[in-house]
Amino acid sequence: MRIALDAMGGDHAPEEVVNGAWDFVEAYPQHHVVLVGDEARISKLLEGRDHGERLSVVHAPGVIEMGEHPAQAVRRKKDASIVVCADLVRTQQAQAVVSAGNTGAAMASSLLRIGRIRGIDRPAIGSPMPTVQGPCVIVDAGANADCRPVNLLQFAIMGSIYMEKVMGVAQPRIGLLNIGEESTKGNELALEAYGLLEQAQRINFIGNIEGRDILMGKADVVVCDGFVGNVVLKFAEGMGKALFSLIKTEITGDLKSRMGALLVRDGLKRVAQRVDYTEYGGAPLLGIKGVSIISHGSSNRKAIRNALKAAMEANTNRVVPAIEANIDQADGE
Amino acid sequence: MRIALDAMGGDHAPEEVVNGAWDFVEAYPQHHVVLVGDEARISKLLEGRDHGERLSVVHAPGVIEMGEHPAQAVRRKKDASIVVCADLVRTQQAQAVVSAGNTGAAMASSLLRIGRIRGIDRPAIGSPMPTVQGPCVIVDAGANADCRPVNLLQFAIMGSIYMEKVMGVAQPRIGLLNIGEESTKGNELALEAYGLLEQAQRINFIGNIEGRDILMGKADVVVCDGFVGNVVLKFAEGMGKALFSLIKTEITGDLKSRMGALLVRDGLKRVAQRVDYTEYGGAPLLGIKGVSIISHGSSNRKAIRNALKAAMEANTNRVVPAIEANIDQADGE
Repeated sequence: MRIALDAMGGDHAPEEVVNGAWDFVEAYPQHHVVLVGDEARISKLLEGRDHGERLSVVHAPGVIEMGEHPAQAVRRKKDASIVVCADLVRTQQAQAVVSAGNTGAAMASSLLRIGRIRGIDRPAIGSPMPTVQGPCVIVDAGANADCRPVNLLQFAIMGSIYMEKVMGVAQPRIGLLNIGEESTKGNELALEAYGLLEQAQRINFIGNIEGRDILMGKADVVVCDGFVGNVVLKFAEGMGKALFSLIKTEITGDLKSRMGALLVRDGLKRVAQRVDYTEYGGAPLLGIKGVSIISHGSSNRKAIRNALKAAMEANTNRVVPAIEANIDQADGE
Repeated sequence: MRIALDAMGGDHAPEEVVNGAWDFVEAYPQHHVVLVGDEARISKLLEGRDHGERLSVVHAPGVIEMGEHPAQAVRRKKDASIVVCADLVRTQQAQAVVSAGNTGAAMASSLLRIGRIRGIDRPAIGSPMPTVQGPCVIVDAGANADCRPVNLLQFAIMGSIYMEKVMGVAQPRIGLLNIGEESTKGNELALEAYGLLEQAQRINFIGNIEGRDILMGKADVVVCDGFVGNVVLKFAEGMGKALFSLIKTEITGDLKSRMGALLVRDGLKRVAQRVDYTEYGGAPLLGIKGVSIISHGSSNRKAIRNALKAAMEANTNRVVPAIEANIDQADGE
């Protein structure tokens, strides 16, 4: 398959992005990555690397800045790297797009240039999150700040398909993120969504889950509106950093602790690895008529490599056709 | 002052609750705690303790179970310990109520028996949360699942007064919890609340803050609806537990690590203490015409002692009159 990669997107672009693409095609030589962006800069980074034509470059000089209105910028800047990436998917010159750039611009270009799956009202970001039992996916992690109950039902269906097809989880457990376990708890949105999820035929709905249940791995798919999902995701990111920084300060205070810190360093590294977002690499934008993976802005080469891998798996395991089929069936119920 | 303590509320009641009351009056002998609940059981726990009449018992045989509808149960069970506590405040036989029991029942009894401050539409729970710079307070942490923008403005005013009067923070920084820093980001509620907060005269509004900013201590008061606040609070609780459990597993795997673990144990204990909710003991129900402190269901004696201390400080520093004065002024703006 061919994956269009926004080579200019992210805090460490284009260097780490190109390095990630290199690592990916080294590991999966049957695939091809199209590096989209400033041709001169990208070509310079490829100099001396024998990639056997598994990497190519498409020039796209435009840049969408962080402050710009995403949809307006996508409409105006047809030469921006993320827009050109989406166009490669639209014209079937690529089967997937991956970007670590401006999330709003990545969403807008996927929506406007590739389009929504018929029947999906609101595409959503499915963000993988490590739990003590392996990763879950949070849908929506930030695409839709305001949602209606039917959106949450569709998030559940799409998340279920993603966990099954890409993460290999049979009958994924769908949990509705709420402020109590009882079906009578919650805000208006959660109360109504509960009713819809309970009636849905093709998902394994396990009821409400609370904030504390997420990391215990109680659900494989955590369904919520994009406001709550985004707050939780960023909170988790901040909390990991804050705790590790506190631990570092507290266990290097005196000589005894410093000696101990040396001895437990490997263990703490393993913990950090288990909660490391770069292991997952990227979050799928679910509900788009093509594979679109959004990576963290601070993605390093490993995160980019894993985002490309996620795109490959979503394509190979036919996530988009599965969503198309299931949304049609859900409509007919 | 006299504090009415729900001796039957919480997972470790009445033993730990009575122990916490004992510790409190030992530390602050000028105050009195009224232990409300099953007189026989409480009296037995007090046997042989010379509390110098700083503790007394009021019999209240009723119990509100976890599954009951809070408001209905409060109306029906006038002899429930939490209802009797609230009545002691209503009749001015006590200046504050503290409970680690059913949160809904504690809220309902405070609302129905003590009443709201004039001008406050929706009382809110202000839950202290540790940050790397000292505690912040999250308002609302779960009292109101659905909110209007004006509610969030009132949460900001009440949270600001609490942080200033009880936590000793001058000009508390008020942050609106949102999914982006720009004023144009967010759901409808956050967008409208932003406008109100920006125009408010008596608070130090610093704009939007994101999930990752909370634990970095970017704001002293984190304003959000009770759904988001409750999810974040419980997520933090679960994340602390999950991370410490992972660390324990990973740093006790082999002999080298186990030796290291012994050496860093004190440091890790200090970290656990810095993120320990029992340090704060309880969350004020803000907007009530009296001091009402809601404690975690799993409160131990230290948490109860600190909840009583929070009640004392809220009363001494006249939080309720300050809210009354500021809400009147806000109305007149």
